[in-house]
Parts: sequence; structure tokens; C-alpha cells
Amino acid sequence: MNNKIPVGVLGATGTVGQRFVQLLENHPWFEVATVTGSERTVGRPYADGVNWKINGDIPDGAANLIVQPTEPNLGISGTSPIVFSALPTAEAREWEPQFAAAGYAVVTNASAFRMTPDVPLLIPEVNPTHTELIPTQQANNNWSGFIVASPNCSTTSVILPLKVWQEAFGLEAALMTTMQAISGAGFPGVSSMDILDNVVPYIGGEDGKLENEPKKLLGTVTDGALALADIRASAQANRVPVFDGHLASVSVKLGQKASVAEAIAALETWQPPAVCAELPSAPERPLIYRHEPDRPQPRLDRDSEDGLAWTVGKVRQCGVLDLRFMSITHNTLRGAASGSILNAELLVAQGFIKR
Amino acid sequence: MNNKIPVGVLGATGTVGQRFVQLLENHPWFEVATVTGSERTVGRPYADGVNWKINGDIPDGAANLIVQPTEPNLGISGTSPIVFSALPTAEAREWEPQFAAAGYAVVTNASAFRMTPDVPLLIPEVNPTHTELIPTQQANNNWSGFIVASPNCSTTSVILPLKVWQEAFGLEAALMTTMQAISGAGFPGVSSMDILDNVVPYIGGEDGKLENEPKKLLGTVTDGALALADIRASAQANRVPVFDGHLASVSVKLGQKASVAEAIAALETWQPPAVCAELPSAPERPLIYRHEPDRPQPRLDRDSEDGLAWTVGKVRQCGVLDLRFMSITHNTLRGAASGSILNAELLVAQGFIKR
Amino acid sequence: MNNKIPVGVLGATGTVGQRFVQLLENHPWFEVATVTGSERTVGRPYADGVNWKINGDIPDGAANLIVQPTEPNLGISGTSPIVFSALPTAEAREWEPQFAAAGYAVVTNASAFRMTPDVPLLIPEVNPTHTELIPTQQANNNWSGFIVASPNCSTTSVILPLKVWQEAFGLEAALMTTMQAISGAGFPGVSSMDILDNVVPYIGGEDGKLENEPKKLLGTVTDGALALADIRASAQANRVPVFDGHLASVSVKLGQKASVAEAIAALETWQPPAVCAELPSAPERPLIYRHEPDRPQPRLDRDSEDGLAWTVGKVRQCGVLDLRFMSITHNTLRGAASGSILNAELLVAQGFIKR
Amino acid sequence: MNNKIPVGVLGATGTVGQRFVQLLENHPWFEVATVTGSERTVGRPYADGVNWKINGDIPDGAANLIVQPTEPNLGISGTSPIVFSALPTAEAREWEPQFAAAGYAVVTNASAFRMTPDVPLLIPEVNPTHTELIPTQQANNNWSGFIVASPNCSTTSVILPLKVWQEAFGLEAALMTTMQAISGAGFPGVSSMDILDNVVPYIGGEDGKLENEPKKLLGTVTDGALALADIRASAQANRVPVFDGHLASVSVKLGQKASVAEAIAALETWQPPAVCAELPSAPERPLIYRHEPDRPQPRLDRDSEDGLAWTVGKVRQCGVLDLRFMSITHNTLRGAASGSILNAELLVAQGFIKR
Repeated sequence: MNNKIPVGVLGATGTVGQRFVQLLENHPWFEVATVTGSERTVGRPYADGVNWKINGDIPDGAANLIVQPTEPNLGISGTSPIVFSALPTAEAREWEPQFAAAGYAVVTNASAFRMTPDVPLLIPEVNPTHTELIPTQQANNNWSGFIVASPNCSTTSVILPLKVWQEAFGLEAALMTTMQAISGAGFPGVSSMDILDNVVPYIGGEDGKLENEPKKLLGTVTDGALALADIRASAQANRVPVFDGHLASVSVKLGQKASVAEAIAALETWQPPAVCAELPSAPERPLIYRHEPDRPQPRLDRDSEDGLAWTVGKVRQCGVLDLRFMSITHNTLRGAASGSILNAELLVAQGFIKR
Repeated sequence: MNNKIPVGVLGATGTVGQRFVQLLENHPWFEVATVTGSERTVGRPYADGVNWKINGDIPDGAANLIVQPTEPNLGISGTSPIVFSALPTAEAREWEPQFAAAGYAVVTNASAFRMTPDVPLLIPEVNPTHTELIPTQQANNNWSGFIVASPNCSTTSVILPLKVWQEAFGLEAALMTTMQAISGAGFPGVSSMDILDNVVPYIGGEDGKLENEPKKLLGTVTDGALALADIRASAQANRVPVFDGHLASVSVKLGQKASVAEAIAALETWQPPAVCAELPSAPERPLIYRHEPDRPQPRLDRDSEDGLAWTVGKVRQCGVLDLRFMSITHNTLRGAASGSILNAELLVAQGFIKR
Repeated sequence: MNNKIPVGVLGATGTVGQRFVQLLENHPWFEVATVTGSERTVGRPYADGVNWKINGDIPDGAANLIVQPTEPNLGISGTSPIVFSALPTAEAREWEPQFAAAGYAVVTNASAFRMTPDVPLLIPEVNPTHTELIPTQQANNNWSGFIVASPNCSTTSVILPLKVWQEAFGLEAALMTTMQAISGAGFPGVSSMDILDNVVPYIGGEDGKLENEPKKLLGTVTDGALALADIRASAQANRVPVFDGHLASVSVKLGQKASVAEAIAALETWQPPAVCAELPSAPERPLIYRHEPDRPQPRLDRDSEDGLAWTVGKVRQCGVLDLRFMSITHNTLRGAASGSILNAELLVAQGFIKR
Repeated sequence: MNNKIPVGVLGATGTVGQRFVQLLENHPWFEVATVTGSERTVGRPYADGVNWKINGDIPDGAANLIVQPTEPNLGISGTSPIVFSALPTAEAREWEPQFAAAGYAVVTNASAFRMTPDVPLLIPEVNPTHTELIPTQQANNNWSGFIVASPNCSTTSVILPLKVWQEAFGLEAALMTTMQAISGAGFPGVSSMDILDNVVPYIGGEDGKLENEPKKLLGTVTDGALALADIRASAQANRVPVFDGHLASVSVKLGQKASVAEAIAALETWQPPAVCAELPSAPERPLIYRHEPDRPQPRLDRDSEDGLAWTVGKVRQCGVLDLRFMSITHNTLRGAASGSILNAELLVAQGFIKR
């Protein structure tokens, strides 16, 4: 089995689960050893149980794996078992703690524990030190494993430029309106009758996630305890007839005044945390600033850096707050599966997972 | 020729011009007597010169009119000639003053003179008394006719709820993000390669129009002079793959605090100015408030009241300013041709145009 | 209750059922007296039980009707009760015969009995005399009521031009490829992830319906018995990202040669059966031939004659068979609810239903 | 300049020209040495002159090339100059012969000379020996260079399965209906107002190309002369709201009967001509047969084998002719730029171009 770390994918038959399986094919550090699925699919080869909905074929390595029930006894060899969780919220709430209790590193894309104070809500480029919450979490729960969460895909789309400006100028408020892709709802997800030639100004629970998760991601961890950032936030999430890519229009109030030129310079000169250089999936240019007046656009920018970049543009004065800008990320890559894989790489680089 | 007022349509072969021709078919007060077009089409029957792009057939009454050059000598009989202008900006800038000088009532959808201080920027439900600027305009220019303008279609989409709250609570700031339909750009307008599976965060000049025009529409006219409203505004206009209907996401800062319930009540109890009851095209319910969490939507709400209603929804607390809401209007009906026709009806009702 | 015939709508909460309710509002002959729905909705007011998905609001007359279970005891007053059936296939198979046995005229849009030899598969403009099967059907089943069916919406899209040419020249074969709208699948129906920026070359069962139903519609009824037309047929049904309107590309082999000019003349001079003049919903021009090279198009032609017209174009030589053409109808109006209402009107006009 | 063959791209600023430039970046044999463009762009760096409309950035190697006028004096070093032509038809008709006369190998995607008898209309997997026409062409025109053409993108979408069955069973007739992507029309190309929520049953000249070009591609070259294949053909080309990928629905009449199983087996066991193994861009699996009832689909299949595969499915009995099937290729890759690059590779492999 070569030297790779065997990993499990929980909820591997859903659309996010499919992305995990696809992206982990040929990963330099990880190898899918186990996939779990719903009762309907358990016991069948993965290729039979899954309704494959993403481009390309099912990876050969995963096609013949027998789908297992989602239980913390996956028979993954080695001392640092990792599971990537693409479980629905209710199942995540039930099973992820059991996996953590059983010693697994649960790297989850589910929302169940994102706002739990001792669970790191993590993006390597934004808050890599929040993994310092892990010992607290293990002590609080008496777990040998732990849970680390990725934020909602809409939160991801805006967070890096907010982080850069928070560091450079301070950040007091963010007012956000998103235009989100249909793939964010999974399959079958959004009915074509709702979205063709239309916009739907409602995504259940999304406004709240987008208002709350940034406060945690931009917060500080001191002595193993998290303090939320003191930022006022307001969000309106809209669904638009776009396949992939969540685009956000954001206005901010800064702690200290910054000119448009200074704000752009802060984005263009920003460097990712040093640890990112050690992560094999980390993009070369995580933050791309485009100067054209009509960018970023979902179709042209979502795939930048293999779908792992933030593309930002249109920084200008806001007539009401301080500055406006537009930002986009690929919602099922940076905003979901790829983001969680990067989190797992960070945990290896920081020694929370042993190779 | 029965008793109807003969009118001309300037720029009748473009998409807005086509809407004028379509909507004036069977109008109770007006009748299209003349159409003008570009050099390419002059001298040909309208049905031959036009590349008809809207649903339904070319009205019989207009099909056989011979396209005239756009010159203020249209041979319209009667003492109160009206021209509806759907001219491109540059041509509007050149010709509209000449028509006004020649005694025509120029009811325009073009942007050339919208922000000219003595030209009423007019919506009957919002600021019907702004026609008091007409004598000033005539005196300033020594014109026997005059120009009255409709606002940009994006401005229209947000203006009525802003007006209602301005009256009820005062209005200090509006922060807007729009999702605008492709028909707003005319034909051929937006390339399908730019907008299919995409959003374009740029419409030339639109942000500025949306930030400036509301200040005029919500301003006050005293002694024949206009004072702009003192409102801070910020706008980001986006093009989305929707055929008709401009949807806007708006956050506002009010002059005095209002609860969500009070703000909704203000919208639901608002009554249009009394003069609107005299206008044959005025909608029965110009302002529709929808309580469903996923409304308004372009496809479901753009055609309400024959495309003449504002549909508003999602009023709620804004975590940064005071309140948020969504609003939509049909961009080529309320936001363009129908809006100008209502303006002409208002001018008749107020006696600026004699029947 | 004025003089209208009280009717029931079976399966009134689905998308086709909603269309029945909408279209019967203000119908000159019929009035919705009862609506039935699934167990989930029974006992609730219609406005509460339905997830209204079509433009415009729920008709006032129907909004407060209490949803009934689908059982042949609807309490409709009068001697000629009619039910319009928008039931799913399995339920139609179970319940429609029971309603017919109980004396109802079942005018159905469901597929369950379309190909049953003694059930008329009916379009007034195509085969109004097929109602002669009704006495046979009643005798065969010992029913006091009866069932009359509308064809599949894809069949409808091609049938009238085929009928015209069958009469004029004879028809030996039809080779069809359709491009069908998403509304044909109901709600939620087609997932946006399947159809945005895509075509799906599969609609379950549709190819067979499109190959078989025309043989019945174009067949002959003699002495109360049906003979299928002897026509070879081949069909490929495709789903395209269009909201309404089924467009078909058809090649035919005729019984005797016809020039393109003769074939077009046959379409343009065709007159509907005389009985159609008595039907209040019958379109003035059921068959519109367009000479432009780029017509018919779904968006421009689907709504012609209130969605009741066939729009045909592009008749030309076929290099393999004899002639090619394109045809379109509105799938949820002519191809579904409106078609069934016309069938009911025909039954009244022919005396099968007493006013 | 390493060892690569320097090539020119004629008409490099259009959408097909952009694809050439993108695809030739990092090509193992070729290197873009010169780009030509219209008068507007001549003399400017390529990155300035081009309105880049495809995913990804402008290749560094081409960005700084100065755009040249399209004249056969490109200063390309070496003894076997190649130019890839993405010229509009009229310019191709004027300039391509001049380049051939000047000694260039003109590998063109333009339609100007596709049906000229001594110009090979070429696809390596279909008719690699048609390059035997080159000496005839050179003798007829007294040229030291020559022209080789790629077929229209709609022709490409159907040609390989037709070729396979022609070889296996004989081919007498093909009846085709296509659903073609908007990118086939270039930029700005199709107006969004024409194609959103719509199908346009018209692409200028496309029906004829699709009816004629297969006869040449499936013809035979003997003693340097071409005989067209004796196949009846009929085509209807439709534009659908899909970004990339031309999907075709085809019915065929074969020379000898074949069962569905035999026809599928012929596709699945087909092997490309041996020379294809020598071409660095040739796909590993040029012909993919999919057994799922709902494939091929543009979004899922257009990118197979880097956009170079034919994906075929739905082979079944045709009720009118013999067999039906669906086929798709990527219109701007296999159907345009990539196809021409493969043709150039074939010319090198066959010795018509010296390395």
C-alpha cells in the first residue's frame, strides 16, 4: 500500500463526497481506503452505489471499494486515521463526535459543529493557528481524536480579502450580497423550474452562516480559547443560474481609512502563512486581484489555480461604508472538498496527524 | 382619426422603440402617427425596417407607417404633439432639445438629460409634482415644448420602496446590489458567450446612474427649482442570465428607527398620489409586498400588474445599517416604455399636454 | 351558481392540476366546484395545500376550496359531471375507471389509457369524430360515464402538420427529434444540475409515446372501432434548457410527392373542422406557418393564440425522405391543460356532455 | 529556439485563433512564432490586441508577440513553415492561396476551400490518406506549399461513427438534427436575447455543410483524385443554450443490415489508423461508447480526452431507417483548433512537413 495515509470518506456517495473521492485520486499523501454511504448503498461496490454527477469518470481506485456503513470502525490501518466527512447535517451531528471519540481526525465539510467554540473552523490561508483549539477540544470531550471544520461555501467566497484588510486596516463591518451557483445545493438540489431564467433570493440558513462564520474565522485563539472577531455583518444570499462559483458583492467599514490604492496593494502584496508552502495542494497564488472592470466572473475565474484561488476585483469607494469589492471562489472545490483536503494537509504539517 | 392624440416614436426600430409601438397599440388616449428611425430604415415601411424582437406580432396600425428621419417636423396634427423618445444617448442629446424647441412634449427614456436640473426625472407614483420644473425649463431655454425623462431601469427597480420609507421615516443612505436582466442591454446587447452560466459584475455607467438618480427622484421642487435629496448611495450593478426583470438587494439607513413590522406596514398601507387614479395605464396595485421568504423572483413577479408593479419582499434587520429588502420591477415595461407612457398620461392629466 | 357546469379537478395540486385551476377561472362554460389532492393535502384549503408554481396568483374561486380525496363521490351537482384528471399515471390507472363507472366524463391528461383502443385519444382540430368510440367504451365496460384522453405533449407538438399532410398527400413515415422544455417534467422535475448548460437526450418513455400516439390520432374510427394509421415512426426526445415549448424537427415520407410550395400551401389553407367554431377556447388560427428561416422558436412562438397554436416553419426538401419541417406547441397549454379543456368543450358541443 | 517547428497563427485574435494560441503553448513539436490580426491590432503586442475570451490567461510565450498583418511574409525561420488559419471565410479565400503559393503549409479551420476537390478535408482518425491529394493540389496550382482543411464543427460531431459503420456495413443515408453550442458562433456571436430560454432552428449555411462535407470525408482518394461517397444526407442545425459541445441525433440507412449489438460492437472494437499513434495530441480513446440511456450529454462528455473524443450512445433501431444514435464532440477543440493541430501533426508524421 505504498506510504500514503489511508483515509475514509464519510457520505461518499453525495455530490461533495464524490468530489472528495475524485480529488483524493493521486493525492501525494492520502489514499482513499474506505467509503461510507447510506443504507441503500452499503455492501455494494462504490461504482454501483453512486449516482456520479461530476465531470470525468469514477476513479479506478475507488470504483471497487465496498460501501461501508457510517460507523467508527472502518478498519483503516495505521495510527492516525483520517476521515473526510461529507455527511448531511443531521448525520454529521450524530456520527462525527463518535468518530472523534474513537480516535479519528474528522475533517468535515458539514455545518454541524462549525460554530462550536472548541472546534477549529479552519482555512489554512486565513487562520492556521486555530488548530490550537484541538487540545482544548480533546480535553473538553475526553476524545483521542478531534473534529476540524471547513466553513460554508458562501463564507469562503469572501473571507480571504476580509482577512487581508482586517490585518492591514482593521475591519468593523461587512455588508454582503451573494450570487451563488446551483451546485452548492447538491443533486437534485435546485429544481430547474425554480432557477432557469430566474434568481431566487433565498438559500435556507445561508444568510446566518455568512453573518456568523466570518466572526469565528477572523477571531483569535489565545491559550486554547477562541474570541470571536467584533465585526458587524449583514448578508443576503441569492441563487443564480450559474453552475459553479459563488460570487459576492461586499461593502466594508474599516478600522482605519484606506485609499483604494492602499486596499488593492494590501491584496496584491499579501503572502500566505509560511506553513502553506508545505501543503501539497496549496495554490501558488491563493489571492488573485484582477484590474479589469468586469471581473471577477464565475465562468472565467472559478477554475483559477485548480479552483483553489480567491479572485477579487472592483475595489472602489463605497458611498455608504468605506470600500466595495467583488470576490469569487469555486464553491465545490475551495468552498468544500478541496478546502477540507487542505485542512487535512495542514493537520499533517502541524503534526496533529502523524504520517 | 377618432379622438386620440397622435404621437410620434423617435428611434422606433430599437428594442425600447418596439415596446413603445407595441404598448401604444390600443392605448385609450394616444395613437402612433409617426415613427422615426436610422438612415438605414428611413423611407421603408416600419414592418420592413424593424428587426422585431419581442413577443407577439408587429401591431397592424404601425406596420405600414413609413419610417421618417428623426427631425422635429413630423407632421403630427393637433396642438399638443407628443414624441416618445427611445433614441440612443448621443442622438437624444442632439435631437431632443430641437424637438422641445419646436414645441413638442418630449417624453424620453434616454439618459441624456435625466440629471439636467430643470428636466423632471419623473415617475407618477413617486414625484408627480416635479412637473413643476417644466415652466422653469421652458423659460431657461426659451422653448415652447419641453423634455420629461424616465429614470434608468435599475433606478426604477428600487425607487418606490425608498420613497415610501423616506416619507415615513426619513432616508439617510442606500447600499444597493442589483441583478439585472439581459433585455436591459437591448439587441444584440449582451453576447451569450458573456452571460450563459455566468454573472458579469459590470454594466457601463450603471453604478453611477443608480447612485445619482434616486437623489433627484426623491428631491423636492420648490418655486420651480429642484433640491436633491441628501442621501448617501452606493451601487454595484450585475448582469445575470435572466431575460426580463431587474432584482435589487438593498440596505438602508433611516432617519429614525423603524421596526421590521413598521417598515412593512408602511409599504402595505402606502397609497399612490391621487392623480394616479386618472391615468389609464396606472396599475391597480403599484406596490406589492410578498411575505414568502423566497420572493420576489424575476420570473414569478416581473409581470405583476402588466409589468407595472414594484414587488418587494424580505424586509428584515440589517446587521450593518438599519433594514434590508429586495425589490423588483420589469425593466422594459415599468423601467422603460410603460414608465414613459405613464409619464405622458400624467402630463395630460396635469394639463401640460392638451387633449 | 349561475349556469356553468360544475367540474372537478383530480390531482389539482400538481403542476398540470394548477394549470387546470388557472385556466378554468372565468371559463364561460365550466366552473371548478371540487379539487382533489394527495393524502397530505386533503382537508386543507387549496391555497394552503398547493405549492403554486405558475405565474399569477391562485384564482380566488379555487383558493378556499377544501381539497378532497380522489374518490368518485365528489358531490358535484347536476346531471353531467365532468372531471379533469391531472393524476399521476398509477393513480390515473386506478381511479379514472372508477369515475367513469360512476358516471363521470373523465377528461384526462394522464397517459394511463391513451392507447386503450376504445378510449378516444383526442384533439378537436385533428380527430373530433373519434368520440364515436365513446358508446363502444361504455358498452365494453358497462359504464355510464367514460374516459377521453389528451395525447402526450411531445405528440401534440407534431400532430397537426402531420394530419394536414396526411389528408393532402398521404403519410407513410415520420422521423422526429424533439427539443423539449423543462416544464414538461413538472415540479421539481428536472434538476438544474442536469440541464443548465446541457442537453439530456432522454425522457423516460417519451420516444415510445411519440412513435405510437400519432398512429392512433391519425387513425380512423368506423362503426365505433378504431384502426391505427399505417405510419412508420421513429423518435428521439431531448430535454433542453427552455422553460416552456416543445420544438420538433421532423422528416416525413409522403404517400404521393408534393413540392415544398404545395406542402406549405396545404398548411396555410387548412381549415379546422367545423365543430371547432363552437368551442369557446378554440384559437382563431390554430395553425400558423412562419416563412422566416429562423422560426419557429420556443420563446417567440409558444404563446401564440394564448398558447393554443401550432407554429410550423422551415418546410423544405429532405435529402433522405421527402420533406423536413419544424413545429412547436406550448407543452403545458396546448400540450396539456388547455388541450383537455378543449376536449371537454368538444364533448359538450357534440352532446356527450349535457349543459 | 530549441528544436520546435516555428508556426504562425493567422487571425490569432478571434476566438478560434485564441484556441490555437492556447493549445500550442507547450506543444511538443510546434511553437508559435508569429501571430497575425486585423488592421486594428497590427503592431500591438498580442496581449493588448486580443479580447481574450477563453478560460485561463494568455500564454506568456504569445503575450508579447507583436501582431503582424496577414501577409505571406511572416519571417518564420526554418524550412517547413506552417501556418494555422483561423481567418474569416472571405479573408481565408483571399490569403490562404497566397500563403500556399509562398510555400507555407496552410492548416486551416476556415470553410473557404473545404469542398475544393484537390484540398484534403482531413481528420486523422477518419481519412488520413486523403493527404495524397496534396501533390495533385500543388501540381494544379503550381504551388510549393499547400492547403489542408478541417471540416465544420457540426460535421465533425457525427463523422467518426458514420465512418466506422461505413467501413463495417456500408452507409447509404444519414438524417441529422443537431443541437449546437453558442461558442460555435464565436464572440460576440449569438445574442443572449436570441438564445436564453430558447432554441434557434437556424445557423447560416450549416445545414448544407453538414450535408456535403461528410461525402468528402467518407470519399476515396485514388491516384491523387477524390471520389465523393455516395450517401444521401439531410440536416437541420439548431442552436441551443449550451456553452460548448455539439450534440447530434442521427438516423442512418446502412448498406447491409446490422443488429444493434453488431453496430455497437463495431464502434467499441474500432481502432484508429496506425499513424494516429505517432501524433502527440491524438487521444488515447478517440471513440467512447456510453451505454447509459441518458448519454452523451454536452456538459458531461464534451471534455473527454481533453475535448478530442467522440462520445456516442443510444444506438437503437430506427422505425423509419435502420439505426439511430447520438454523438457529441467539443466544437472548439475537436471541431476546430485541436482538430487542425492534429492535422498538422499528421502532416509531419507523413513527411509532408519536415521537422
